[in-house]
This record gives sequence, C-alpha cells and structure tokens, in this order.
Amino acid sequence: MSKKIAGPEIERLVQLFARLPGLGPRSARKAVLSLLKRRDDLLMPLSEAMQQAVERIVQCPSCGNLDTVSPCSICQDARRDQSLIVVVEEVGDLWALERASVVSGLYHVLGGHLSPLDGIGPDKLNIASLVNRAASGDVKEVLLALNATVEGQSTAHYVSDRLASTGVAVSRLAQGVPIGGELDYLDDGTLVAAFKARRRV
Amino acid sequence: MSKKIAGPEIERLVQLFARLPGLGPRSARKAVLSLLKRRDDLLMPLSEAMQQAVERIVQCPSCGNLDTVSPCSICQDARRDQSLIVVVEEVGDLWALERASVVSGLYHVLGGHLSPLDGIGPDKLNIASLVNRAASGDVKEVLLALNATVEGQSTAHYVSDRLASTGVAVSRLAQGVPIGGELDYLDDGTLVAAFKARRRV
Repeated sequence: MSKKIAGPEIERLVQLFARLPGLGPRSARKAVLSLLKRRDDLLMPLSEAMQQAVERIVQCPSCGNLDTVSPCSICQDARRDQSLIVVVEEVGDLWALERASVVSGLYHVLGGHLSPLDGIGPDKLNIASLVNRAASGDVKEVLLALNATVEGQSTAHYVSDRLASTGVAVSRLAQGVPIGGELDYLDDGTLVAAFKARRRV
Repeated sequence: MSKKIAGPEIERLVQLFARLPGLGPRSARKAVLSLLKRRDDLLMPLSEAMQQAVERIVQCPSCGNLDTVSPCSICQDARRDQSLIVVVEEVGDLWALERASVVSGLYHVLGGHLSPLDGIGPDKLNIASLVNRAASGDVKEVLLALNATVEGQSTAHYVSDRLASTGVAVSRLAQGVPIGGELDYLDDGTLVAAFKARRRV
C-alpha cells in the first residue's frame, strides 16, 4: 500500500532494496535516500561494484562457491588438503569457516537444506555432485558442517546416507557449550548434547 | 577486523553495503549473498536501477527534491498552491508528507538540520535559497515542517528569524498527542505541548 510519490526510478530502487533480507520498505527507503544523497562516494561505487559482480562473479562448478575465477580460488589452491571436503549449506557458512581459518581442506556448498514443504528435495541441492566428488578417490573424509537446526541435521542425515556407498569417512561438527557460553542461558538441547559428549580432562 | 576471504569484488560489495544506514558488516554480507544467489531476478535489476539512478536522478535546483526532471515534477506542477512552501529537513520527510497527501503547496528541502558540533552551519543548508524563494513575491506562507527534535526545532527557530525580513507568514506543524497515542505511554514533553495547545470542542 506504499504510495508511489518519488518517480518510477526511485520507486523501483526502493522496491528492489526492500527484497534484500533484513530490509523492509521503510529501511529500503532510508538506504536509497542515503545512496542518492551520497551520489559520488556511495551510489556510483556501489553501482560499479554491482555491475562488476554481474559480469565477473560465477559459481564454482566443482564446489558451488562464488568467485571471479572458475574453479574458485579455494578449489585451485593446491596447498589445501584435497582429501577433506567440508559440506556447508550456504556460501555464507563457507565465509564464516574461512574467517575462522579452521578448514585446511576443500568445501562443498549444498545451496540450502532439505525442505519438502517448500518443494526443496535432494535434486534441488548439490548432493549428486558431492557424491561424485567423494567417490573420485582423492577424498578420505567428508565433514558435514551443516547448521545445528532440525532442517540442517536432517539434511546431514540424508547426505550421510547418500555418501555411505562411497566408503569415505563422514564426520560432523562437535555439539556442546559455545565458547563464552553461560550454562544458565543455554537451551536444554545444547546442555543435553554437551553432557552426552562430555570428555575426560 | 573482518578477514578478507571472498575475493576483492565480493569484499568491496560487502564494504559498500555496510555503509548504508541500518546495515552492519553482518547484514551487509547477508544482503550481498542474497544478491549473488538471486543473480537474474535481483542482482541484475538492482544493478541496472542503480545505473539509471546515477545517470538520471538529479537534485531540483529550486526545492532540493530528487527527481529525473529538473525542476522536479512537484515544482513543475502548476496545480499546486504556489503561495505555500513547506520546509523539510530531508527528501524522506517530503516523501512522508506526499504519502499522506496533505500538502497542496511546494516544498523546500534544507538538506539536514543545524548541528554546530558536526560543522553544519547555516551555509551548509539550503537556507539562502529558501529566503530568496520566500522573497520572490508569489509566496504567502512558509510552513516549517522540521522534526520535533531539539535540532529540528532550533533549526526552525533560525530559519524563522532569517525569513522575518521577507514578510511572509511563517508557521509550524501542530504538536500534541499523535493519533492512536495512549497518554500513559507519551513523554512529558508531548503531554505538556498537548495541554498548552488545548482547543475548545
């Protein structure tokens, strides 16, 4: 029900911004206004950066990562451990693991999680290509680093079943108390998982 | 301290998005990821809309509004009451008033409010051009529709002084209880203003 008052070009910008996650109509208007006010130091560079993204950023045919080279720079990096594939739901999860500098191996981006109610079955995710990579012979371990949500874990279960025939070791991230976490504020599920997986010191 | 992990093009997009109001590094990453995932139906249209904005949207030399025509379509609209100028801080305020379909007259966008500590003095705002317009002879009333904040009201005070020499009537928006407002939740300042400006029924 937002009235069109600012001319079709500005209105279209606002509508497109409002489709980004976390932005509603109101914050989209604020963002567009700030872009238009800062034409030279924000609107123009952002416009150019997006044009470049359209032209240059492609999905890696091997792992599903986004990069300007194909295969992506991670897949091309010969120093990485080619025997470990870390499976994530989204590219954002890959970025998070890379920021933590924790993964020495390669990645595989599924592109989401199974969600039958939304029509997202196994064929909509990059699962077949993962099985192919795992069966290629170089790979010894597949680590399922999916979200610790119901959807993520049931996807992990399904992927794990599909990988059984390849004979590679399948692992998952440890579950427990997060670093800095206060027991009093943690949910029961986390406490149960941490208790069950307790380790000797 | 965010580590660069996603290639310079994506990193630059994230940094530019993070400079928009309401977006931090994390939500900027989410927005960029969603753009890259939805290349055809979001990234490309948004890139084109921004390119069009760079090329076509200009500031109205008369009132400071943003539009693709110059003077802006509001200033060009002969049906509007040429004797009333509504002064606002930002184009977003002009949009809000236009959405409410409340203003029959023209606008004047100051471009902000006085803020000596931030180095924003009268010469940084479109005040001189407002005085010129008010003195042109067509204008009978200038309505100061500035924010009801300390900065907005002190700016209104200053603008009002500057307009004194032109002889036009200077007015401001009424202050009081907002429609739907519950007295129990209103601040003291609003209650005092509403009490002082009470009207006979």
